[in-house]
This record gives sequence, structure tokens and C-alpha cells, in this order.
Amino acid sequence: MGLNEYILGLNNLEKITRAPGFFKFTEHTVAAHSYRVASIAQVLGDIEELNHQQVDWKSLYEKSLNHDYTERFIGDIKTPVKYASPELRGMLQIVEEKMTEEFIDQEIPVEFQEIYRRRLFEGKDETLEGQILAVADKIDLLYESFEEIVKGNPEVVYKEMFIEAVQTIQTFNHLVSVQYFLKEIFPELLDREFYGKEEFLIQINELF
Amino acid sequence: MGLNEYILGLNNLEKITRAPGFFKFTEHTVAAHSYRVASIAQVLGDIEELNHQQVDWKSLYEKSLNHDYTERFIGDIKTPVKYASPELRGMLQIVEEKMTEEFIDQEIPVEFQEIYRRRLFEGKDETLEGQILAVADKIDLLYESFEEIVKGNPEVVYKEMFIEAVQTIQTFNHLVSVQYFLKEIFPELLDREFYGKEEFLIQINELF
Amino acid sequence: MGLNEYILGLNNLEKITRAPGFFKFTEHTVAAHSYRVASIAQVLGDIEELNHQQVDWKSLYEKSLNHDYTERFIGDIKTPVKYASPELRGMLQIVEEKMTEEFIDQEIPVEFQEIYRRRLFEGKDETLEGQILAVADKIDLLYESFEEIVKGNPEVVYKEMFIEAVQTIQTFNHLVSVQYFLKEIFPELLDREFYGKEEFLIQINELF
Amino acid sequence: MGLNEYILGLNNLEKITRAPGFFKFTEHTVAAHSYRVASIAQVLGDIEELNHQQVDWKSLYEKSLNHDYTERFIGDIKTPVKYASPELRGMLQIVEEKMTEEFIDQEIPVEFQEIYRRRLFEGKDETLEGQILAVADKIDLLYESFEEIVKGNPEVVYKEMFIEAVQTIQTFNHLVSVQYFLKEIFPELLDREFYGKEEFLIQINELF
Amino acid sequence: MGLNEYILGLNNLEKITRAPGFFKFTEHTVAAHSYRVASIAQVLGDIEELNHQQVDWKSLYEKSLNHDYTERFIGDIKTPVKYASPELRGMLQIVEEKMTEEFIDQEIPVEFQEIYRRRLFEGKDETLEGQILAVADKIDLLYESFEEIVKGNPEVVYKEMFIEAVQTIQTFNHLVSVQYFLKEIFPELLDREFYGKEEFLIQINELF
Amino acid sequence: MGLNEYILGLNNLEKITRAPGFFKFTEHTVAAHSYRVASIAQVLGDIEELNHQQVDWKSLYEKSLNHDYTERFIGDIKTPVKYASPELRGMLQIVEEKMTEEFIDQEIPVEFQEIYRRRLFEGKDETLEGQILAVADKIDLLYESFEEIVKGNPEVVYKEMFIEAVQTIQTFNHLVSVQYFLKEIFPELLDREFYGKEEFLIQINELF
Repeated sequence: MGLNEYILGLNNLEKITRAPGFFKFTEHTVAAHSYRVASIAQVLGDIEELNHQQVDWKSLYEKSLNHDYTERFIGDIKTPVKYASPELRGMLQIVEEKMTEEFIDQEIPVEFQEIYRRRLFEGKDETLEGQILAVADKIDLLYESFEEIVKGNPEVVYKEMFIEAVQTIQTFNHLVSVQYFLKEIFPELLDREFYGKEEFLIQINELF
Repeated sequence: MGLNEYILGLNNLEKITRAPGFFKFTEHTVAAHSYRVASIAQVLGDIEELNHQQVDWKSLYEKSLNHDYTERFIGDIKTPVKYASPELRGMLQIVEEKMTEEFIDQEIPVEFQEIYRRRLFEGKDETLEGQILAVADKIDLLYESFEEIVKGNPEVVYKEMFIEAVQTIQTFNHLVSVQYFLKEIFPELLDREFYGKEEFLIQINELF
Repeated sequence: MGLNEYILGLNNLEKITRAPGFFKFTEHTVAAHSYRVASIAQVLGDIEELNHQQVDWKSLYEKSLNHDYTERFIGDIKTPVKYASPELRGMLQIVEEKMTEEFIDQEIPVEFQEIYRRRLFEGKDETLEGQILAVADKIDLLYESFEEIVKGNPEVVYKEMFIEAVQTIQTFNHLVSVQYFLKEIFPELLDREFYGKEEFLIQINELF
Repeated sequence: MGLNEYILGLNNLEKITRAPGFFKFTEHTVAAHSYRVASIAQVLGDIEELNHQQVDWKSLYEKSLNHDYTERFIGDIKTPVKYASPELRGMLQIVEEKMTEEFIDQEIPVEFQEIYRRRLFEGKDETLEGQILAVADKIDLLYESFEEIVKGNPEVVYKEMFIEAVQTIQTFNHLVSVQYFLKEIFPELLDREFYGKEEFLIQINELF
Repeated sequence: MGLNEYILGLNNLEKITRAPGFFKFTEHTVAAHSYRVASIAQVLGDIEELNHQQVDWKSLYEKSLNHDYTERFIGDIKTPVKYASPELRGMLQIVEEKMTEEFIDQEIPVEFQEIYRRRLFEGKDETLEGQILAVADKIDLLYESFEEIVKGNPEVVYKEMFIEAVQTIQTFNHLVSVQYFLKEIFPELLDREFYGKEEFLIQINELF
Repeated sequence: MGLNEYILGLNNLEKITRAPGFFKFTEHTVAAHSYRVASIAQVLGDIEELNHQQVDWKSLYEKSLNHDYTERFIGDIKTPVKYASPELRGMLQIVEEKMTEEFIDQEIPVEFQEIYRRRLFEGKDETLEGQILAVADKIDLLYESFEEIVKGNPEVVYKEMFIEAVQTIQTFNHLVSVQYFLKEIFPELLDREFYGKEEFLIQINELF
């Protein structure tokens, strides 16, 4: 009992597949996803700061780095499940949270428990950093689904996911980092040759 | 909506890993595990019949072939989770059952729903066939953990699992197929060279 | 010598790839294929029974579950080989059968040998159950090749295989389960978005 | 040209293997390693702060998250190469640095270049955060090599690596987080059953 | 020190991936690539000889079999790197060569060193055999990139690579084996159904 | 029909696993094995030549490079099969040879057929080059099985295979290259730390 078990959990996340069975060309682990979201959040934080917003960097890194740690308990099963009513998803959420509580009680020394309670529970709150986390998580999904599209994966679900990601990001358009992303980074992403590009761009352009 | 979705689910089970992250040398899918359990149940059924027991073959095959189909919904997560109280395991069980209900309602034509309700809910009941399923499931685990041991996997958990499997099988010792298994098949399994064999056999012999 | 060796063979089938090098997006093992064929045969058996046909369930499960066990001896090489005259295929068939004989003689206790002779030799006979097995084996191939097509695999061989599977299934059109499959399940399978769908459907519709 | 290319680089790091061909039981990607090092640095930072040290969290997260990003250019080849004199290693180092310069010039917008110069060059400096990064990088290696040892990998190189990691960590013993790690976390790591444990512990105890 | 280390190096090449992260559908190892290039060089040598050219077979086999052995030292990183000026590529080349020198000095017995110096340094010289090696290396790349195209990989880089390979081969058109390849073997390669074939053939035909 | 099909066959060999399911830690492809055997034959040829034996290098390279090409037809199944009498192995051999004949007739232009008949049929004849091939093939097996032993694979079959390989090599002790190998290279191979080394060396020393 102690912090050793927390560190061992990082290994587990190296082996837990994100949305198991979902991505066809490139599989992602929860560990790699966490690294990417933290790095994207860092990009967005830079943009905010350059535009004179106050960024609490400690909070931003902490939120983004740890936001999926609790998937070590039951894997990344909440997203992909079909046949699940909101009630059932809620039950899975509760199971995960209770296991997190149990983990903190059993494995984290008392003097650190408060810190881990903050870290391991939902970080997507109303603060600037919580909003950046929500955006960074969606940008990562956008890049993941775009990679499938560019490699010629014809299943319609990736386009739907891509579009849903763009739409969610747009709801954060009051953030200067989102404005910058959509204006400067996003067009560059799309500027690549791939099969079915014309038809795809028409669909995307309708969103703007 | 129709039986097509049931058949597509068989594909999913080809990709769902049994006890994810647990077996080090050989990974198993739920589909392959189901095939093995049905085949082992068939071996046990033969022995019962040769010893003048009445075997309901339809029930035996049906129970063993379908016993893990519902893992397509949330994966094989009930076994490996740590930090789960019986209450939390119960919640996961309920989630799985409700999704199964939902699946039958949405995807199975009405005239077949009764059959699938029988098939997709717990088969390990008090009938001879339900008991054989319970034994066959453990025998498969026994072979899986033994393979890890023979290949030199030094983690203690495989020996514990092997011993626990033997002990559970022994509780079904009133079945002639279990007596035959322990007397004729099990010793043959152990009759192989592997590192640490002597010490291991001492532990096993204490069980008898 | 005994049933232990039969059970160990189940493990081998978990590692033997079906049609090695053939499927590009999803590989299949012989164990998983056997599970799927038995489950599809079960679907077809239900339909027959609901339509007042007499189904010998023991035979149906037994035939479908065991129909490829003997691939443990020389792998699944009979299908994929090029440059093989019927005479050479016949020789491979004989090799497999002789090894099966040898296996039964060496490994199966005398009192069970009769059962395994029945189980491990060709099950696709003229009985209802033998015909259902032949159909279920082709339906599995149909789903496997369709998965390649839907994922955008452009090689023409998967369409040819799909069409050949449909045509073989049609030769069993005197079975009520085949009529049901083609009328109720098959159209649902096709009802998915994928690249080149229109052109593909034209080819398929010509078969009916 | 813009930040899109930086984000695409995160994907590359998901596919670049750490010390290719070195770890036998569990392979690690640079992305997962970066996630782990940042999380371990966070653990050490907590301990420092609880013991009244001033931690610059922004710097700590930034250093640890980005410390291996430049491996996207020539992979993780500096560590494993044999037959390389210090001079040759130095040349590889220069190649990597020049490619990093080139990358920043070509891909990062001018207003962010200063930030990336700080981030993508060596972070293991004399500051508290630079020292924590050096320790966290070694702790990750310690856990990686210990996993090989516990799984029974008999090659001597993992023990050597483990011992070398302990020794390097000990040189930072003036840090309270290192004292805590060696006293509270490390013994817990060792408290596991594995083959050859006794002999191994004797070697380890000699280090203290 | 001795030839054992040379033989162990062959194992390494079985694990080193050619152009890591580049080929999407089929990965290639340096060992397999070397086998293929030697076999293709053999085909070209046959054609030369049949057309009354003098072939030094020992030199041809030796050059082609060994031409990438030195990639065991730093992997196949010279080709895929972006952001590398010719100067940086030159530095990587020098590092590889110095490690080769070091390897020969340390591991090859004196009486064989001369032979290995000849074998492990650049074989693509002005001799007929050196030219055949250059052509065979490009033909292998042609087949590798064509496999990606035929499997529907939509990324434009494979077509560019294919075209670049054809163009390089054409610069050796003074060789009778190249004339034969382009006239007799190449059209047969293209004679396959694949998505986007028509448009692709138009591009290819423009090269002739 | 033409040499294109021969070249495509090289790709197949990149995907055919040597002794499928046999090697646990490192799998080998037929392509990589061919590369290794040709390279080991080259080492042995050097030694012969340095000791004033006449080596026909064209024949040596040709024999070793092509000796397993025909495994593209039915895979590497002759070695691993159990339950096969010599008669059945003979039948598999005949099947392979007839398919090779068929391949040459159908795919190789008439003017090259003679060459391919020489190349694709058994190369292990009584010539010096045929004997070197036989030795090189066994040395490769020796290194493959030794790698399993060194990595701690406890199954007895690798030691048996290692010993059998040594014994076969010893029957060629009239070759100076074999004398050199056993005296200079083999002891270096064994000079490594691994678990169970002492006991293993006792067994090996008994062979000399």
C-alpha cells in the first residue's frame, strides 16, 4: 500500500486499448492518448497566454495528464458500448468512481489522498483549464478519426465522429485558442491528398 | 434488427480478449474460449454417457457454446477487476444483464426471443449439463494457467489459479466425468518436463 | 495417450490461422471459426425447428463444432494452395485422414475411438444436419469476405468469394432455413454504407 | 507549416518503440514512456511540496512531458547502439539537434518558436525540476527492467540496468523526494514473489 | 570476438523494420528485404547471361545479399527522416561507416577482415554487378509500393515512390536485363484489378 | 505467366512462418531464414577458401538462397507435423514437388525453365556446396533454438533440437569449415550468461 501501486497503474494504461475494436488502422492506448491530450492542451494553453489570458498551468497539465487514469479499473468501455441506456452508462460511471474511491483509500498514503481525489475525478469543469481539457480531448479524437479517413477506411462512423468532434469544439468558440485552432491549424490538417477528399470537404464546409 | 446482429456479435467475440492483460504467453479470445469449453464439455458428456448417465446433449452444447456471448457487451471485465466489492461486481452483472435484455428486445425477432433468453442468461444451474459447464469452464482455465506455468511464467498468480481450479473441480467429485478427469486425464497433463516441476507437484499432491 | 492430447489440440487450433495470408483486415483462427460455424448452425437449426422440421441437435452441434479439428495436423492448407491439381488436393486430403487415423489410434482410449471416428471425419453428408453444416460454413465465409469488402479491401478475390458463397448457399434453397436466411438476414447484412456499394449491389442482385 | 505538424508528431511517437529490440516481454512506445515519466515526476513533485520545497509545476510538467519529443526525428537509437564511441554518440546528438532546429524553423509559427526551443532541448538541468526529470526518467527504467526480471527474463542485462538505475537515483539523494522514494516506494516494489528473488535481493541490498 | 557476432547480427536484421512506420499494409524486415533483393538480382543476372553478358555471379550474390547488413547498427533511418539536409544525411552515413569499421576491428578475425571490408561497404559501383544491385533494390521498392497501391492505400506517397522507382530503373536502360524487365515483367505486374487502376495507368504510361 | 510470379512468390515467403507455432520467443519467416542460411553459407565458404578448398561460389549462393522457395506452395509443414509416418511425409514431399513442376511449367518462360528446375529442387547433394548448405541450415537451427534456451524457454524440445543440430553438424566434420565452426565460433556462442547454463554445458560437453 503506497504510491508504488499508482505507478504500476501507469503500466496498465500502456496496455489498455482505447475504444477496443473501434480504430481499424491505428490502435491507441490510454497511456498514449493521455500523453497526446496533455500535449495538445499545452498547445492551446500557449495560444491563450499569448493572447493575454491567465493560464493556471499546474491545473492544465494536471487535469489533462490524469483525466483517463481511472480507466485502469474497468477499461475504456463507457464510450463504445451499444445497447446502453443513459441509466446503464450512469451505473458504469458509478462503478468506476467507487473503485477509484476504494483505490485511493487502499493504496494512497493519507497525506496524499486529497491530491488524488482532485486528480482522479472529473476534470472537465467550468474553469478555463477544464474547458481546454474538453477541447483537447476532442481534438485528439479528431486527429484519430481523420487518420482513419485518410487511410481509406470507408466506414461512415469515422466521418460522423469527425463531424461530431468539430461541432463540440465549435461550442467552445468563445475561447481564443479554439478560434486559433479552427482558423490556423485545422485547415492545415485537411490540406492532404486522400481518397474522397472533395466530397468530404463539402460536408465539413457546411459546418462553418 | 434481426438475427444478422447476433451473427455479427460472433465476430466481436473473436476480438475480445479473455481476462485482458492477464495471460502473458498466450492470449485467448472469448470466441476461442467458447469453442474450447464446448469441446471439453463434449468430452465430459461422453464419459457420463459411457457410464450410463442420461445426457441432454442439446442442452449441454447450447449451454457451453453460448455461456460467454454476453461478454460482447462490456468485455471480460468482471473477473480481472481489483478494487471491486461484491456490490460493485453485482452492479456490473446487472449492467450486462440489462444490455442483454435490450439486445434481445431490439435485435432478435419475437418468435426467437424466448430461445435467446434461455441461451444468453446464466447456464451454470443444478442440472447435470449446468454442472458439466461449470466444470468445463474450470478445466479450460486449468489448461490455460498450466500453459503459463510450463512456459516458465514465474508469477505466483498462475499457480494459485491452477490450484483454485483443481479445488473447484473437486467440489464436483460426485460426477463420474470429474472422477475420470482427475484419475485419467489430469495426471497425463502433469506428465511433462518443465522448470520447477518437483516443487509444483508437491503443492498439487497436497490437494488430493 | 488419452483424452489430454485431444484437449491440448484445442489450444493448437487457437493458434492456427484460417487461410493463412488470405484475409487482410481481420485474421481468423480455426478455433474461432469453429465457434462461429456452430453458432450459425444453431441459428439455422432454430429456424428449421420453428418451421416444423425435425432437428437432431446433438448431431448438428457435434458436426459443426468438430468439422475442422483435423486442421491441427497440417493446418488450413487445402483451400489456399495454387498450382494444385485435384489429384494433389486429394493427396493432401489422404495425408490428413491418415494422420487423423493415427491420432485416434495413438491418443484416444479404445472405448471412445468409435465416437471420434464419427466426429473427426467429414460431416457434410446428406442428412439435414450435414446440409446445415455445409450452409453454415459458407455463411461464415460470406461474413468474413463481406467484412473485407466493407473495410475497403479492393482485391477482387473477396467479391468473387462472396458471390461464390451466395451461389453455394442458393443450391440449398430447398431448406427452409436457407430461404429464411436469404430473405430476412442477408438483406440486413447488406444494409450498411460502404465504398462501392451501388456497383456491388448490382452484381449481387443479378444472382437472384 | 504551423502547429498541425507538431500535433502529428505526437502520433509518430505513439509508433516509435523505445530501445527497439531491447525489452522482451513488454514493449514501450515513446508516447507511453513520456506519459509515465510526467506522472512519476508529478509523484515526486508532490513529495517535495509536502516537504516544503518550492516546486515550479509548469516547468516540471513541461520538462517531463516533452523530454523525448525529438526522438520522432531519428527514433530512440542513441541508447542501444553498440560499437559507438562517445564521439559517434555525439554526432548522433548533433544530428538530432540540427533536425530539431530545422523542424522549429519550418513548422512552428514565429511567435511560438521561443517556447519550443525551450521545450525541445535538453531539460535535465541543475534546477529542482531538471533533477526531478532525471530521477523520474530513471525510475521509469527501473520499473521497466523490473517487469522483465519479475516475468523471468534471464538475461543479465536487465539486472545490470536495474542496478545502474538505482545507483543513478542514489546520486540524487539530497532530494527529499528521492529519500522518500527509496524508503517508502522502492521496498514495496520489491515485495513481490518472483523466481530468483533471494539472490536478487542480496545484490540489491549491497547497494545500500 | 569472432564470426559468432556476425551471425548474431543476422538475427538483429530479422527484427529491424525497413522504413519504420512507412508501409501500412505490409511491414518488411531488413533480412527479408535482403533476401528479396538477392533473388531479384539473380533474375536479372540470368537475363544478362542469356543475352551473352559476362556475369560475375560471386560478386552479384555477395553485393546483393550484404548490401544492408550495416543497418544493424543504427537501423534503417537514413531514408525516412524528414528535416534532414544532405549534410545531416552525410553525418548519419559517416556514423554508420565508423561503426562498421569498429565492428570489423572488434569482431572479425584478422584473416577475414579484408573480405568484410569489401562486403560491408557500398556495393552500388559502376560494375555490371553494382548496377544490377542498384536496379534490384529499386525493383523491390517498386513491388513494395505497388502492394500498398493495390491494397487501396490512398496516400499519394506510394504512387510517387512507385514512379520514382520506375524512373530510376529507366536510367539503367542500357542494361539488357532492364529492357527485359520493363518489356516482359513490369506489364505483367500491372495486369491486376485494383481500385483506381485506370487513372494510375495513365500516370504510368506517361513515363514511357 | 512470366518471371513476375516468381518475384511475387518472394513476398509470400516474407509472410510464411517457419515451423508455425514452434518458436515461442522469436518467430522466423522463410524469407529471413533463407537470408540467414545464405549468409552463414558465405561464412563457411570463406573458411573453406582460406584453407585452400575450391569453392563454386555461384553454386553455393544459389543453393542456399533458394533452398526453401518451394515452401511458398504448402508452407513449412513437413517438419512440425506429428502423427506422420515416413510414408505420409513422403506424400507431402511429392505434393510439393508436383506443385513446383506445375509452377515452373505455368509461370517460368521456357528459356529459363532449366535454371529453375536446378534451383527449386533439392540442393543438399554430395558436392562441397551441397554439404555446406546442409551444415548452414543446421547452424541456423542451432542459433534459433539457442535463442529460445537463453531467453529461458523451459521446454525440453529446444535442448533436444540444439543437441540434434550439433550432432548433425558433427557428421560433416571432414569439412574444414565445420572444424573451424566447432572450434572457434561455437564456444563463443555458448559464452553467455543464462539460466541453467551449467547443467546445459554438461550435456553439450558430452557430445565432444
